Amino acid sequence: MPEKQTATPQPLSKQAVDGQLALITRGIAELINLEELRTKIARGRPLNIKVGFDPTAPDLHLGHTVVIQKMRHFQQLGHTVVFLIGDFTGTIGDPSGRSETRPPLTREQILQNAETYKKQVFKILDPQKTIVDFNSRWLGAMTAADIIRLASRYTVARLMERADFAKRFQGNIPIAVHEFLYPLAQAYDSVALRTDVEMGGTDQTFNLLVGRHIQAQYGQESQCVITLPLLEGLDGVKKMSKSLGNYIGINEPPAEIFGKAMSISDELMWRYYELLSDKSLEEITRMKEEVETGRLHPKTAKEELACELTARYHDLQAAEEARRDFQAVFSGGGIPEDTPSLSCTQGEDSAPVAFLTRGGLTSSRGEARRLVDQKALTLNGRICADPVSSLPAGEYIVKLGKKRFLKLLVK
Amino acid sequence: MPEKQTATPQPLSKQAVDGQLALITRGIAELINLEELRTKIARGRPLNIKVGFDPTAPDLHLGHTVVIQKMRHFQQLGHTVVFLIGDFTGTIGDPSGRSETRPPLTREQILQNAETYKKQVFKILDPQKTIVDFNSRWLGAMTAADIIRLASRYTVARLMERADFAKRFQGNIPIAVHEFLYPLAQAYDSVALRTDVEMGGTDQTFNLLVGRHIQAQYGQESQCVITLPLLEGLDGVKKMSKSLGNYIGINEPPAEIFGKAMSISDELMWRYYELLSDKSLEEITRMKEEVETGRLHPKTAKEELACELTARYHDLQAAEEARRDFQAVFSGGGIPEDTPSLSCTQGEDSAPVAFLTRGGLTSSRGEARRLVDQKALTLNGRICADPVSSLPAGEYIVKLGKKRFLKLLVK
Repeated sequence: MPEKQTATPQPLSKQAVDGQLALITRGIAELINLEELRTKIARGRPLNIKVGFDPTAPDLHLGHTVVIQKMRHFQQLGHTVVFLIGDFTGTIGDPSGRSETRPPLTREQILQNAETYKKQVFKILDPQKTIVDFNSRWLGAMTAADIIRLASRYTVARLMERADFAKRFQGNIPIAVHEFLYPLAQAYDSVALRTDVEMGGTDQTFNLLVGRHIQAQYGQESQCVITLPLLEGLDGVKKMSKSLGNYIGINEPPAEIFGKAMSISDELMWRYYELLSDKSLEEITRMKEEVETGRLHPKTAKEELACELTARYHDLQAAEEARRDFQAVFSGGGIPEDTPSLSCTQGEDSAPVAFLTRGGLTSSRGEARRLVDQKALTLNGRICADPVSSLPAGEYIVKLGKKRFLKLLVK
Repeated sequence: MPEKQTATPQPLSKQAVDGQLALITRGIAELINLEELRTKIARGRPLNIKVGFDPTAPDLHLGHTVVIQKMRHFQQLGHTVVFLIGDFTGTIGDPSGRSETRPPLTREQILQNAETYKKQVFKILDPQKTIVDFNSRWLGAMTAADIIRLASRYTVARLMERADFAKRFQGNIPIAVHEFLYPLAQAYDSVALRTDVEMGGTDQTFNLLVGRHIQAQYGQESQCVITLPLLEGLDGVKKMSKSLGNYIGINEPPAEIFGKAMSISDELMWRYYELLSDKSLEEITRMKEEVETGRLHPKTAKEELACELTARYHDLQAAEEARRDFQAVFSGGGIPEDTPSLSCTQGEDSAPVAFLTRGGLTSSRGEARRLVDQKALTLNGRICADPVSSLPAGEYIVKLGKKRFLKLLVK
């Protein structure tokens, strides 16, 4: 890795160190450990920050961005951030050969996935200050002898302390031997990168700590470990995940990001502010006070959050437009006075192809289907892309394209 | 490995297979399993027999030769024997870095040790029919990815079933992770060599069975496993080992091998016959009957065994000479009539430097010391190389060089 050496580093004052620590520890789950990190920062040298990502290139959602925001904080403080794509195991595939679903990735796929990652994370990180690296660079060059030497530096008993291993061993659920090698290979990444701080979700704590031990075994100063909380989804209860449907995707259109952000509870809003917003903690505290004392409407605070998130993944103009559309729909002020009303019963009639045509917004079910497929339909500000499923009972502001409106009552 | 393909193999008759199995199963501890081995042999193709040896090149003793004798049996039956030197782990050294005593071996040391091995084992095996190979040939060429794939083919739970791992895990004695990789690497040797039968001591059973599993995982027919009993030492109780001093070394002089073999019990003699002799089981059974019915003196049977072993590691002439010397000393017939007698008390006077000079066999303690250092002294037919230690009470036929005799009584 190219070292960015500029001037000789100057030790920092306690005040400067404390200033950095305040930003770094904002919203984190755990830091191991504070005194070591204080010492590393105080030297005044830019720290190497490492975060590993799966090479299968998912569509990122806000849950993923919690740690990326923290990487951004380190960048803002002048440190060097390595976005490490763990492609080594990806190129091996599922070595047990038992799963057809995980064929090894080719070099081309990995580079392509890396581009997909970059397109998403560079909406948050500074591309000039981000090193994108691949652990196949060093792990792929390792021999069997090298990995045996690496494996000699850790004990079976310690790996057995990892919760999932312990549980499977006790429950007679097979653990293949190579599963013991992956945490060690990941730990070796920190040796190769001379990592000062590694970050990950709280579910990664064990693996990150292995890195501390292995670095010491290879004669390096041990890295500090920072874990980030798992972000709650829109429901405020479960972890944000694609499969649970409670997520905001980075690649979603402005109206979706804005609308979904507006749907969270007031309590969850402050959590999102802390973990996702670029606002300083002081600003957030002040807003919170203003809301509590009634000087600021919580809905306004939420709009500001929704606007910030939308702008981050699109731009300010798109965000403002999404805000206007949202306000128009929900205040009603934006709906033309002559907007027709329609009521129907839940069932066939409450499917978009039916009510759009019956309400006069489309001239045929075919046109309705085509426009919905093109994502031209929003219901209460949220895109609806399914032309045939019936809506449940409720009141809906139906908007088709930019100008066609309908007030729909499903009974 | 070069395949020795001659003619198209012809399936063997049941009788021919049974004949092979009789020799193969002679004296073994366990065969896993008989039906599979029967099938392999019946095909009429020469089988690949693998036995692994430590690359640190010890002086071999008869305990080591039990398995080598069994390799010889396979050679006699026309099979291909691979004397596999496990040099791969030897070149890694002790990867934990905790022991100063196991520095990695260089290529030169390994080749030198291989020569030392050959010099010893070719006294038993047919050099023309023995392939000496090194597992670094394939393990050294493996990448980290290859060994991860290998490790994916076995489970932690099965390794934990190995007695020493289970015991250490339960007793909180650390097991380094690489120790889990060694049995797998050794098992992979069988894949690389397409081994049909692997042999080892009973203490190796677990590791040999891993080979069966790994071969199947790599799409090969699983090897059969033959374990050989651990040979009892001269005391007839404990395992023969250098550290216990109850051994006969392959490189010992004829008189030593002969004399030590004569010192074993009659019961142990039959065990040695079974495990070490080239005599057929029929011959041995006949001798046993002759001893039991009094037609053959057990001492004569023992002399025959001692003679066979001595001839194997030297030659027939040296063996016969050792037998004559032994008989001369113990029958008394070979001692000159004018042999002087000497008696002394246990202590300073019963040390060789003292009684040799006092008995007139040497002219000075210096000469005595020098000759004893040169291994010219035998006591009751066994070399004594220590000039200064006192002998315990007993009667001794002292022989210095070829001609100087003394009858010594230590009180």
